[in-house]
Amino acid sequence: MHTEGAGAALRARLAERGTVQAMATHSPLSAVLAEEAGFEALWASGFELSALYGLPDASLITMSDHLDMLRAITGRVGIPVIADLDTGWGNAVNAAHVVAQYERAGAAAVVIEDKVFPKVSSLTPDGRQELLRVEEFQGKLQAALAARNDADLLVIARTEALIAGLGQAEAMRRAHAYEAAGADMLLVYSKSRSPAEIEAFVAGWDGGVPLAIVPTSYPELTLERICAWGKVGLVIWGNHAIRAAVDGMQTAFARILNEGGIAGVETAIAPVGEIFRLQGVESMKEIEDKFLK
Amino acid sequence: MHTEGAGAALRARLAERGTVQAMATHSPLSAVLAEEAGFEALWASGFELSALYGLPDASLITMSDHLDMLRAITGRVGIPVIADLDTGWGNAVNAAHVVAQYERAGAAAVVIEDKVFPKVSSLTPDGRQELLRVEEFQGKLQAALAARNDADLLVIARTEALIAGLGQAEAMRRAHAYEAAGADMLLVYSKSRSPAEIEAFVAGWDGGVPLAIVPTSYPELTLERICAWGKVGLVIWGNHAIRAAVDGMQTAFARILNEGGIAGVETAIAPVGEIFRLQGVESMKEIEDKFLK
Amino acid sequence: MHTEGAGAALRARLAERGTVQAMATHSPLSAVLAEEAGFEALWASGFELSALYGLPDASLITMSDHLDMLRAITGRVGIPVIADLDTGWGNAVNAAHVVAQYERAGAAAVVIEDKVFPKVSSLTPDGRQELLRVEEFQGKLQAALAARNDADLLVIARTEALIAGLGQAEAMRRAHAYEAAGADMLLVYSKSRSPAEIEAFVAGWDGGVPLAIVPTSYPELTLERICAWGKVGLVIWGNHAIRAAVDGMQTAFARILNEGGIAGVETAIAPVGEIFRLQGVESMKEIEDKFLK
Amino acid sequence: MHTEGAGAALRARLAERGTVQAMATHSPLSAVLAEEAGFEALWASGFELSALYGLPDASLITMSDHLDMLRAITGRVGIPVIADLDTGWGNAVNAAHVVAQYERAGAAAVVIEDKVFPKVSSLTPDGRQELLRVEEFQGKLQAALAARNDADLLVIARTEALIAGLGQAEAMRRAHAYEAAGADMLLVYSKSRSPAEIEAFVAGWDGGVPLAIVPTSYPELTLERICAWGKVGLVIWGNHAIRAAVDGMQTAFARILNEGGIAGVETAIAPVGEIFRLQGVESMKEIEDKFLK
Repeated sequence: MHTEGAGAALRARLAERGTVQAMATHSPLSAVLAEEAGFEALWASGFELSALYGLPDASLITMSDHLDMLRAITGRVGIPVIADLDTGWGNAVNAAHVVAQYERAGAAAVVIEDKVFPKVSSLTPDGRQELLRVEEFQGKLQAALAARNDADLLVIARTEALIAGLGQAEAMRRAHAYEAAGADMLLVYSKSRSPAEIEAFVAGWDGGVPLAIVPTSYPELTLERICAWGKVGLVIWGNHAIRAAVDGMQTAFARILNEGGIAGVETAIAPVGEIFRLQGVESMKEIEDKFLK
Repeated sequence: MHTEGAGAALRARLAERGTVQAMATHSPLSAVLAEEAGFEALWASGFELSALYGLPDASLITMSDHLDMLRAITGRVGIPVIADLDTGWGNAVNAAHVVAQYERAGAAAVVIEDKVFPKVSSLTPDGRQELLRVEEFQGKLQAALAARNDADLLVIARTEALIAGLGQAEAMRRAHAYEAAGADMLLVYSKSRSPAEIEAFVAGWDGGVPLAIVPTSYPELTLERICAWGKVGLVIWGNHAIRAAVDGMQTAFARILNEGGIAGVETAIAPVGEIFRLQGVESMKEIEDKFLK
Repeated sequence: MHTEGAGAALRARLAERGTVQAMATHSPLSAVLAEEAGFEALWASGFELSALYGLPDASLITMSDHLDMLRAITGRVGIPVIADLDTGWGNAVNAAHVVAQYERAGAAAVVIEDKVFPKVSSLTPDGRQELLRVEEFQGKLQAALAARNDADLLVIARTEALIAGLGQAEAMRRAHAYEAAGADMLLVYSKSRSPAEIEAFVAGWDGGVPLAIVPTSYPELTLERICAWGKVGLVIWGNHAIRAAVDGMQTAFARILNEGGIAGVETAIAPVGEIFRLQGVESMKEIEDKFLK
Repeated sequence: MHTEGAGAALRARLAERGTVQAMATHSPLSAVLAEEAGFEALWASGFELSALYGLPDASLITMSDHLDMLRAITGRVGIPVIADLDTGWGNAVNAAHVVAQYERAGAAAVVIEDKVFPKVSSLTPDGRQELLRVEEFQGKLQAALAARNDADLLVIARTEALIAGLGQAEAMRRAHAYEAAGADMLLVYSKSRSPAEIEAFVAGWDGGVPLAIVPTSYPELTLERICAWGKVGLVIWGNHAIRAAVDGMQTAFARILNEGGIAGVETAIAPVGEIFRLQGVESMKEIEDKFLK
């Protein structure tokens, strides 16, 4: 468990590896699984948490819900957790308030996007995608930066210019403006079905801070190729935890009903003992042995 | 969505079907999946929710956490939700308080077990398994029953006599005592590796209320056989949602890291569009179309 | 305790009394005190709850925080509770989602205002006060109305036209537009230091639904005079619970420090036994006597 | 705001002053008022928070509710906050889990009492008052001590031996046993109507750690006299914030109803501007001025 130095830990990883892979997470359990698998960071995704609650990713889950889940996650894993703040739940005042809460909760980084609140998920077919004025979003970033107590907390600016169909030039203009406002990293999102759009952006990027990308809609882009670009600090696999969980449950539920019982799935899903292990029953028993008198 | 008449709906199903299958759930998402698969009821499991939080099932998650999740679940599904209250988070006073909260949150039934607080999960290897005195647990049940506003809410008594190794006679004695106290149904739990123990109990049961069972550790027991007994109203598949989700995530995470990218898992897990569907993006768009001006 | 029929209960009171007084509340305790004093309804105030958390009333407390407190309040009192939703935490989609949650939590009425999110408290000196376009707010109201399961839940539209300095004509235009959209009542807020502004509005009101007012900044306006107007259904005393609590605590804290002990305040503040009474210790003891065995 | 070094700050104050006064608190607002008044520490009281929720102090509010409020409090004040953990919500396993959460939330100290869960408030007339075996409570203390990440967090053991009517010798035996288990301080509670009982205990105390007292039922005991004893590190004024708030609200509510309006109370309670000040509207405006573009 860690609550201090989370930002410093992420900065150290970035310095050491060049490119860090973060897996999306929606719960302490999925976070523990990603850490055990070998991911070096976690993406506390608004999309995944909305999905866990069965709600559209449209500013319906509250900051409290997301913050509580992030806190539960940072309490269970040792790798840095990057918080998906969407638009920051309001204006510069809200952003300042929110960032202070996430820092206290153990986040290593926060990502704020330049869409208008309430947002709609970037990949939603025909979703509304309106952006803030550049100056207004710069103000939000500066408010977020000023709200840090720990200068190592990364404030990552996310531009939705490509998502909103505004083109490479506008995306580049915004990226530079956000770096000028103090952002520690720039997340550029594309929903193109090919990596060409994001690759073009990366190729053209001449700023001083690293980039972050979320290659969800163009899955053929490999980590090797991303690393070869030399400009991407953070690769976020943005929705694969919840999609894998859904698939697992759909398959098992259908079998149980079709087969009239659980004998068939028994060996196809994780054994109960594996759940006990993931819950930390072992260390609970150590506490019982030592202290339960 | 339903908040009223949940107990009546479950009673109607029990009357109609004889035996109702409830799938374990830990989130609105898993609840929606279980409803879509065709399960007729849900088990808002303390074990699964503890696992979601990466914590042992040992009275560590709080009543607030469990109640909030149940409320989120009843807000998203139409089938009855049965709340796993463990020991009721305290004595008769707590049980009365707690039952009133769960009824308001839309539970169709509550299950209270006769273990001492804080409990340890019944299947934990070498777990402590101490039971309350029968009279004390009868008082808790009566407090729970008196706290109902809706007489249709089912108060289900769970005896851990077999789990605690006290034998069939003690399990039967407790089951009768709890029925005498007013319980609407009796849940009898066994961790035997074969169904023989639970089958013997069912065969011997001569009370007037139906039984509930959780056939987790003896998966070969089929629904058909349970139905043939004619005494079991509720079959709870107790931990298969979280086990299936874990398996799904472990597999996908390992592939992504091994393959250096997400191309391989893309078609192996649920597509993004399926998540949008489960989130209710369609009905959000209807609201947007009608009301966003 | 009540969770059903809250809207109907408020409508019945309005029909019977003509004008109902609602006291601001920030907790179940303040709600119980207001009910005991004789107030007929409660105002679950965003301003008071923000103050309880030591935060500006500027969309910083989350919907979760406000909803949880409202739920705790409706669980402890029998009088109708009117929920202050501010701007509805977003657009029409958010409003629909939010109203469904508040109805489930036992609210009798919800109030949504025509300011832009994030809002600033109406009485804040030099506070930003921007309003939505009329058509957009009508859409929010219609989304809220359509989200009701219980047609008796009152959806009250609040216009901040006078607060924003837009004048009587604009306030009247908006009030009519919101009634046309289906609002059950219209709340008109004025921060004038005299009642003349609100009195002029009321005199000019020729719509079919009753008005609600919050006479905070012009305290000389009496209930008698309001009732004499014959058009105001709801008088909300908007911030007096928290102001009285603050005064009580400031006075007691200063005395304890100045006097070097608590002997002086002992008889100046509520006795411990009074707190026990308000906590419902008596009914807890009844449960213990009956059920704790 | 502080989240780190809270324990060290409290230890420094204790070293410097000898005796520190902590005021009971139930919200960030009451905490800010106590800090402004000049109290040097805060008591995050379970009794006061239960009262805020209108519930008996009988383990009905959950750890989540109490922890969330403590976190909100530590986010708003600079003085150390001492967390009232009651019995620790369970056994040694729960205590370990709970203490880690409170440390992360910014508590300077935690107090755990030797009553059986669920507890009843110590001052409840005819309340049940059962104690744990000494060895079991020592185990809980050791589990709590081992769960600290910050060795400066104070773990304070509270014995209810006098409350339970077990006499001075048993209270002394337990105090020594808890010090032997590693407690940083000992809280001894008495509900006698005179200070003689607690004075006798203090006079007889020959242990190495300081004492904490809660002189609620014998208000004539002055701070001066307590300081003169030279053995009490912490004086907790245990319920005066909520009692003062209740008195303030009861008086104001009655006047408003009796006088048919708010003109009379307007100058008798805190002005609206004072609430704005306590909410931090000033610093919000600074953020707006700097960053809202």
